Amino acid sequence: MLTLYFAPNTCALASLISLEEVGADYKTVRLNFAEGEQRKPGYLAVNPKGRVPALVTDRGILTETPAILAFIAQSFPAARLAPLDDAFSFAQVQAFNSYLCSTVHVAHAHRLRGSRWADDAAAIEAMKKKVPQSVGDCFELIEREMFAGPWVMGGDYSICDAYLYTIDRWLEGDGVDIARFPKVHEHFRRMEARPAVQRALSQQMAAAA
Amino acid sequence: MLTLYFAPNTCALASLISLEEVGADYKTVRLNFAEGEQRKPGYLAVNPKGRVPALVTDRGILTETPAILAFIAQSFPAARLAPLDDAFSFAQVQAFNSYLCSTVHVAHAHRLRGSRWADDAAAIEAMKKKVPQSVGDCFELIEREMFAGPWVMGGDYSICDAYLYTIDRWLEGDGVDIARFPKVHEHFRRMEARPAVQRALSQQMAAAA
Repeated sequence: MLTLYFAPNTCALASLISLEEVGADYKTVRLNFAEGEQRKPGYLAVNPKGRVPALVTDRGILTETPAILAFIAQSFPAARLAPLDDAFSFAQVQAFNSYLCSTVHVAHAHRLRGSRWADDAAAIEAMKKKVPQSVGDCFELIEREMFAGPWVMGGDYSICDAYLYTIDRWLEGDGVDIARFPKVHEHFRRMEARPAVQRALSQQMAAAA
Repeated sequence: MLTLYFAPNTCALASLISLEEVGADYKTVRLNFAEGEQRKPGYLAVNPKGRVPALVTDRGILTETPAILAFIAQSFPAARLAPLDDAFSFAQVQAFNSYLCSTVHVAHAHRLRGSRWADDAAAIEAMKKKVPQSVGDCFELIEREMFAGPWVMGGDYSICDAYLYTIDRWLEGDGVDIARFPKVHEHFRRMEARPAVQRALSQQMAAAA
């Protein structure tokens, strides 16, 4: 049995979608970010980083979206969520997800989490101001250089799709119009039509209610 | 034949060390960051992100340190640089490397690359000021929660060690005293004694000369 610690509208949605895609037997624990539950001792014992997602397995606890997604893909090989038998193709999947976590998510985080990188209120405001540009630049690169289509990696759906979709959902709040990126936009609609995505969104909504 | 595009003292050192560890047949191309070579058309054709590392393989080009390191480990299984046959342990390796790329490297980058996240000079200065604290906090967490010892993952040397060592080397410039972290400090010395690390450093120094 797997347990996913998550909060609605965070990057943990990518793990939730992927657990649904593979038909895993899992439960969820929702953290209340508004009450800062992710930084309280109970959760810090699960994930000392004080962030989501965290996936509790019978071997121990995993954190970090790219690692959890690859673990789900490897643990449920029949679902074919990654090219597991081809080191080069698998590395391409990892490279895409690594770009999302280290560059795209980070650009986005400067809108609401600026206090991680500066204490000064004016500096935090200056960071917010640049988010539409920096996030927009990332998506231009994805649209032009990284997106094979119809799925991120080409003909086969993979863990990259769940992760990209999760970050797409932040674009409006970041002041970036997804319609600027026709391939990404079409992919977003295609994702919303997947039953696993709909189930993950329902779970997220029920948890937030 | 593999070709690694790198620049001295960047995170590309982790890939250089790992190529040395496995005894790969490879060559290097050094980019001159002082002249902004990473943003010129010649290199953008290799890596449109304008960053290092990039690894040219006979199948295509890979970017992003965690992906390149996992690719090297999987392509040279005899060197045992990652627990390739165990999805959970492999995910732990990936989680550690993902933390380094998405949180630790990012904290560090606010010292010299603040213009990625704000245009205002005072804001960029405010970011610089916080680097000793934010990078120091990351290493406190690594020391206390993530470092099994004597290697990052415990008894077996892995791709995590090359990556941690690479980022350790930035601590002094970031205003963080490595001696605050006894396990990480001892690991740093242990890494410097490895022949593969010495060969990688010599290459880096020769390229910078």
